[in-house]
Amino acid sequence: MAERNIKIVIEYRGTDYAGWQIQANQRTVQGELTKAILQTTGQKVNLIGAGRTDAGVHALGQTANFIIDHRLDPEKYKDALNYYLDDDIRVKESYEVSLEFHARKHALWKRYRYLIGAEKSALYRELRWENERSLDFDRLQKAARLIVGKHDFSSFCVAASRKEDNHCFIHKARWFRTGPLLVFEIRGNRFLHNMVRILVGAMVNLGTVDPDHHRENLTLDMFADILYAPTDRRVVFTAPPQGLYLVTVKY
Amino acid sequence: MAERNIKIVIEYRGTDYAGWQIQANQRTVQGELTKAILQTTGQKVNLIGAGRTDAGVHALGQTANFIIDHRLDPEKYKDALNYYLDDDIRVKESYEVSLEFHARKHALWKRYRYLIGAEKSALYRELRWENERSLDFDRLQKAARLIVGKHDFSSFCVAASRKEDNHCFIHKARWFRTGPLLVFEIRGNRFLHNMVRILVGAMVNLGTVDPDHHRENLTLDMFADILYAPTDRRVVFTAPPQGLYLVTVKY
Repeated sequence: MAERNIKIVIEYRGTDYAGWQIQANQRTVQGELTKAILQTTGQKVNLIGAGRTDAGVHALGQTANFIIDHRLDPEKYKDALNYYLDDDIRVKESYEVSLEFHARKHALWKRYRYLIGAEKSALYRELRWENERSLDFDRLQKAARLIVGKHDFSSFCVAASRKEDNHCFIHKARWFRTGPLLVFEIRGNRFLHNMVRILVGAMVNLGTVDPDHHRENLTLDMFADILYAPTDRRVVFTAPPQGLYLVTVKY
Repeated sequence: MAERNIKIVIEYRGTDYAGWQIQANQRTVQGELTKAILQTTGQKVNLIGAGRTDAGVHALGQTANFIIDHRLDPEKYKDALNYYLDDDIRVKESYEVSLEFHARKHALWKRYRYLIGAEKSALYRELRWENERSLDFDRLQKAARLIVGKHDFSSFCVAASRKEDNHCFIHKARWFRTGPLLVFEIRGNRFLHNMVRILVGAMVNLGTVDPDHHRENLTLDMFADILYAPTDRRVVFTAPPQGLYLVTVKY
């Protein structure tokens, strides 16, 4: 036998997880997957995820890899892990990749989606942001267009998570409607901590139409200023986690 | 003040309810609504629902009414009840109707939908039937067409629930695809206990394409026979509750 590198694609409902990253005494996605691999193979692997999703955030196509020396067919991990996993995580694919493959470092881009429902829903409340304020679609779309390109997103992340270089290249960013939902879709080479949720929070703030609204509203100009000339000032509007989905990771 | 008849339209996620009908020591939709009306008005009303949904069955447009002598504006019951209700029930409308109105007896027709997902989903497992068997859409649709019209549905209900007259007039019945879902929609003047779930169970049985399937499959002819000449024999395939939605009640 020899070492193999196994890539898995995973869907999960983030509601009952303390996020992706393994933590002592918490139910996490990485923790549950690592446990299922241990139950399947008897081995404790180092599971590398493409991105760390926060508590409550969902994934349709999270991607991870682990190196293991085991006789099980790479394609069989899908069913084997699903057998041990709870129903709110599903392994959708499993296959062998070259030993060099690294799920985080080799990601070319990631796509996220953020769902906003205009009305409270008894059925989908943990799968979208229920925001009953009236939103100006045009203003949202104008803000989304400003995001596209390469910018320093230091004002749009958790302060403690700032790196030396906070530039991200955003390939696409747009809003669209589907049924009763307003959806924001964004694709980029890199995302800082909470960046999508803070971008959505800021756009929803500047897009809110509410004559009786006494809180300070961002304007499109202010949004552009912060985006093009980041300062120490951070944007303080963070959309809640349950609307966010990690959709695809492209290699 | 005087007595008023209040009509409410309700959406709920049936997952965590022991169905519509009030029962001692169980969390039921009728029970929670009656409690919220009591909290709002101090009065215990007799809440009449259009249809009794079973445990796990959802509703987008369940309808109910209650007679009350209280000064609260009829339109205000919506927000008042939602204030007391858990997030998995939403009152969508409330308004006054004539004192004669009865949510069950005066229903002209009801529409139900049944959702089947071809793949297991980490996100929607309580909101559809996850049926991974391959289904022949044409055969399903042919069976649905047989259902339309006035028939004696005694073979398609819980035996103990049979009435003297088990005829129902089905106006529409069809299957359609939407995204990854297969949906059955049915509209009729009356539905017997478990009738939609048993119809779906029978259609899925006869529509299943599976060469290694050793269990007895219904054929379209057998389905038509049972439908047009009901006997004591009951259909024993019952689709699970989580795929079923009471969509609309029309008056």
